[in-house]
Amino acid sequence: MSKYWNKKINSAEPYQAGEQPKDGQRVIKLNTNENPYPPSPSCAAVLRDFDISELRLYPNTDAAMVCEAVAAVEGIKPSNVFVGNGSDEVLALCWQTFFEKKTETDKAVLAPAISYSFYPVYSSFYDVRIEKVPLKEGFAVDPEDYCGRENCGIAIANPNAPTSIAIGKDDIRRILEANPDSVVLIDEAYAAFAEGYESAATLIGEYKNLVVVRTLSKSYGLAGLRVGYAIADEELIEGLKRARDSFNSYPVDRLAQKIAAAAILDRDTFERNRKALIATRNRLTDELRGMGFTLPDSSANFVFAKPPEGISAETLYKNLKAKGILVRYFNKPVINEYLRISIGTDGETDEFLEAVREETGNGKDC
Amino acid sequence: MSKYWNKKINSAEPYQAGEQPKDGQRVIKLNTNENPYPPSPSCAAVLRDFDISELRLYPNTDAAMVCEAVAAVEGIKPSNVFVGNGSDEVLALCWQTFFEKKTETDKAVLAPAISYSFYPVYSSFYDVRIEKVPLKEGFAVDPEDYCGRENCGIAIANPNAPTSIAIGKDDIRRILEANPDSVVLIDEAYAAFAEGYESAATLIGEYKNLVVVRTLSKSYGLAGLRVGYAIADEELIEGLKRARDSFNSYPVDRLAQKIAAAAILDRDTFERNRKALIATRNRLTDELRGMGFTLPDSSANFVFAKPPEGISAETLYKNLKAKGILVRYFNKPVINEYLRISIGTDGETDEFLEAVREETGNGKDC
Repeated sequence: MSKYWNKKINSAEPYQAGEQPKDGQRVIKLNTNENPYPPSPSCAAVLRDFDISELRLYPNTDAAMVCEAVAAVEGIKPSNVFVGNGSDEVLALCWQTFFEKKTETDKAVLAPAISYSFYPVYSSFYDVRIEKVPLKEGFAVDPEDYCGRENCGIAIANPNAPTSIAIGKDDIRRILEANPDSVVLIDEAYAAFAEGYESAATLIGEYKNLVVVRTLSKSYGLAGLRVGYAIADEELIEGLKRARDSFNSYPVDRLAQKIAAAAILDRDTFERNRKALIATRNRLTDELRGMGFTLPDSSANFVFAKPPEGISAETLYKNLKAKGILVRYFNKPVINEYLRISIGTDGETDEFLEAVREETGNGKDC
Repeated sequence: MSKYWNKKINSAEPYQAGEQPKDGQRVIKLNTNENPYPPSPSCAAVLRDFDISELRLYPNTDAAMVCEAVAAVEGIKPSNVFVGNGSDEVLALCWQTFFEKKTETDKAVLAPAISYSFYPVYSSFYDVRIEKVPLKEGFAVDPEDYCGRENCGIAIANPNAPTSIAIGKDDIRRILEANPDSVVLIDEAYAAFAEGYESAATLIGEYKNLVVVRTLSKSYGLAGLRVGYAIADEELIEGLKRARDSFNSYPVDRLAQKIAAAAILDRDTFERNRKALIATRNRLTDELRGMGFTLPDSSANFVFAKPPEGISAETLYKNLKAKGILVRYFNKPVINEYLRISIGTDGETDEFLEAVREETGNGKDC
């Protein structure tokens, strides 16, 4: 509380990011869904060739070269792409552009009750009502829950976090058709890790109310670069630009634009890292199940796993942390029985599994 | 207008940045107050030494190394510094943190009627009332106008833009003391170019209601990097962090943090470029006055100049543009009689002056 903060800030409940170890601290970091593999070598080439004097000039406001890279890869137009300072910024701008304030409407944004915990934070901060739609058994999102229900917008992470479960393209189509007057935001932060997943971005030509948000943080190994983007009909992109230009006209710096474009255009590195990560995830899933953990099949770069009888998620989280292994524990109803474990390298995964065996008594001679 | 945009976006009047030439287009760019000199060589060293694999991890949310660099240079604590994605983002967060919404109060933020044109944009976008305080004769800000007048905050660019005129530290002290219950924001984007100017940041130990905002865009030649910061009492810094974490937890990427810290710590380059720019500005001022232009003494990296009788600011702007020289023309009452001309290198300034001579008939054999 401070008399110098306005009412909003005095009552704000900000987002709590996963803990970051101090520089130089040796940990196995499986708590914030970073990619265990370095980004494309072409990113290093950008650094090598970059003329530092270029930084004296403002960047292109639209990050045109990133729009062009995304367009080339997705087979869409650059004008269907909006680039921001990480997908969190893009999401925040979506909230400010497409969802109506509670002073203007009684309608709420619909979002899964268990999902990315920034959604309720944006809703509160930008004065948008949010209706948290319960998940079905096994944490499934049921598309029918988003049809025939009054709303001022819909936001679904697909695959969902922290549950790791994806819905299909036909499900999204169903939601889009049932809500022609609302913007439907599909947050595909983790979509690259969903086997056989067809991005909702392939639907933007058909649905003017669809916005798909992506990030380079996970699938391109560039969490430290802060670049995310939205794909949508030009009218929605234009709205996002209006919000951006009411706030910060140059959100993505010159170096980040060049590095992001280079990373997106290197499909080989993207595919190789994606496949390696999926293989490790599937192995981790099998091993955890073998030790008595309960977890859904993951479509993301993390698993959402409930420890076997005899050890709580909180205890396991703390004991792993004491061993220098960070995973994500959410101190909230229902999900406090689970841990979200990011997929590391094979070596990190082996160390993690070994530590879990020690903690759960699995595989010990006792 | 779009049915998919909310009411706010449908009625928004976004900020209009100065035009950016296309890549490869040869222009003399004196329209967006960029520094004509490249940034510190230590920025290039950061690029050379940077391990690209570092980018796979999220950055430090507070940009701690930048806070430490600012603290070292200013003789303050890192906890008195808040770093953002350009000072525009920092200003936007100040608006959202310190100034009360019109739904909560009838009081307005006081700001000079002629000032940075983003201030009314923020006010409108974040639902804050703004009261534009007229300037005195010769575009002067009179501190007395900000004393004894009810408000929910005060925002003053010092030096002011586009007028180029600064008020003194005692003036700021007077305003702070007259408004103990309001946050007084001093936007020092251009302060490095004010000869003999003592930053308001030296007052933060005395006044808990002072926030000073700076940018690396102008004085460090890093407009393309997008780093700005606020200096204030810890309670105000804490408020800014609450706003940031309600919106985007990691606003400054890893490379930008390292480059910014390196630039701030290289005082030699900063001082050399600053002095060179001031010398060129003072020469430009003399030469323009010699040609019949009217302009106040500038404390910034631009001059605000009214052309001599016989040629309008708009015509001169257009004619210079046709010659490949961009300056800033504002199509608004009063200031549409002036041009804002950024300070370039000596060579660019000579070319600019030559073109002006041709356009105004000064120095011609006719």
